[in-house]
Amino acid sequence: MIKHNSYFDEKVQSLGFEGKTQPVSVGVMEAGEYRFGTEAAERMQVITGALVVLLPGSSDWQRFSAGQSFDVPANSAFDLKVEETSAYACFYG
Amino acid sequence: MIKHNSYFDEKVQSLGFEGKTQPVSVGVMEAGEYRFGTEAAERMQVITGALVVLLPGSSDWQRFSAGQSFDVPANSAFDLKVEETSAYACFYG
Repeated sequence: MIKHNSYFDEKVQSLGFEGKTQPVSVGVMEAGEYRFGTEAAERMQVITGALVVLLPGSSDWQRFSAGQSFDVPANSAFDLKVEETSAYACFYG
Repeated sequence: MIKHNSYFDEKVQSLGFEGKTQPVSVGVMEAGEYRFGTEAAERMQVITGALVVLLPGSSDWQRFSAGQSFDVPANSAFDLKVEETSAYACFYG
């Protein structure tokens, strides 16, 4: 089953599903600034556009572009700046 | 604006948006067999899982896995077999 989720006034939307080995979602973020909490650890992969990320424990914003990915620990939170509408995939656990 | 689309009894869902240079959608397909028509030409990129595709004018099914992509001409149709829930990005025009 595919689950459609909508956050931040529909400016972030995702489609979640059970992948072969782990839960996965693909999604789109419009330009904006967002803060997300994690339960499971997750790896985010940028598909189009770019995500500028402040990872937990870091004081430096890092830019990730199409094809790049970054890891976020479980039970944490991270901040994102999105300058153009961007697509991502997220792999949990 | 992000547009949520649902096809084939919700077994295929996508999120469409205007990318920097062209319209884009990211989506998920559950296991099944589907036939899609195109208006604009499109490039499909597999994000997770695999798509087995019969392209227009071809008599051979081809398998595309995560990271691979294929092109579909405008105003045509193509058949897909999906063996496990798979995610894709589609770039139009």
